[in-house]
Amino acid sequence: MKILGIDPGSIVTGYGVVEKRQERYIDIRHGEIKIKRGSLFTAALEKVYNELFSIVAEEKPDAVAIENIFYGKNIKSLIKQGHVRGVAILAGSKHHLPVFEYTPLEIKKAVVGYGRAEKIQVQKMVQVIMNFSELPSEDASDAIAVAICHINHRKNDPM
Amino acid sequence: MKILGIDPGSIVTGYGVVEKRQERYIDIRHGEIKIKRGSLFTAALEKVYNELFSIVAEEKPDAVAIENIFYGKNIKSLIKQGHVRGVAILAGSKHHLPVFEYTPLEIKKAVVGYGRAEKIQVQKMVQVIMNFSELPSEDASDAIAVAICHINHRKNDPM
Repeated sequence: MKILGIDPGSIVTGYGVVEKRQERYIDIRHGEIKIKRGSLFTAALEKVYNELFSIVAEEKPDAVAIENIFYGKNIKSLIKQGHVRGVAILAGSKHHLPVFEYTPLEIKKAVVGYGRAEKIQVQKMVQVIMNFSELPSEDASDAIAVAICHINHRKNDPM
Repeated sequence: MKILGIDPGSIVTGYGVVEKRQERYIDIRHGEIKIKRGSLFTAALEKVYNELFSIVAEEKPDAVAIENIFYGKNIKSLIKQGHVRGVAILAGSKHHLPVFEYTPLEIKKAVVGYGRAEKIQVQKMVQVIMNFSELPSEDASDAIAVAICHINHRKNDPM
């Protein structure tokens, strides 16, 4: 099973394509899509969409797993994140992939075994699970974590 | 000048293509894209994107004008609206159109001459300006209003 995990953000969107073969998790590709300061928001949305669309076209994952919005931030940033999340979901569904969403709590629980884990704990666990020589960036790490989360306990119903 | 106005909503998205020829406003096309109750949100986003994308391809407007989010609602609905707004903007920018945003206040002021106007006043003014025989629906009316607003006082900078 090959999953594209996405951690959509109003400034940085992390992604990670993870495949499980037998009992091993393989890192197919991961990274960050950054929105430049001062760039038009429309151009930023298009960039996120285009990059994710290409990744799906090239890597052909079986499904998309995306982090749910965490309500703790300010409204403006939540709404901006909503825009980015909208085009991220579209990049998957345009390829007819099912899209599953997981809360930060579910993701942390799946990876660290503890829903209130710190960001750095998620990064370290992702490093171990994926056998990375270096600590992955926060956003890529969160994206890989949501992919692992989906592989571990697949939800039955897409969004 | 031909403008596609969009009023993005978490359930109904209104659109209106308005052209100004000499001193007259011409209704090229208007309507609503409705998200069915119980449909997958991913499918809904794709529907909004696909329909707006086709409208832009067929009508070839010069720009897109979109209503800004009004913060008075509950957060969940605002975020959902953010998703819809994200794919609506993408439908325009994928065709290399500039996208301009206007607040509800600016739109009402442009159409009714008064920022705190009621919905029904906007509908009636749109009916008069566009020379419609019947009252347009709320969502289509708001979309047409944002197109008229852009034609009347064009902003210089896109989003």
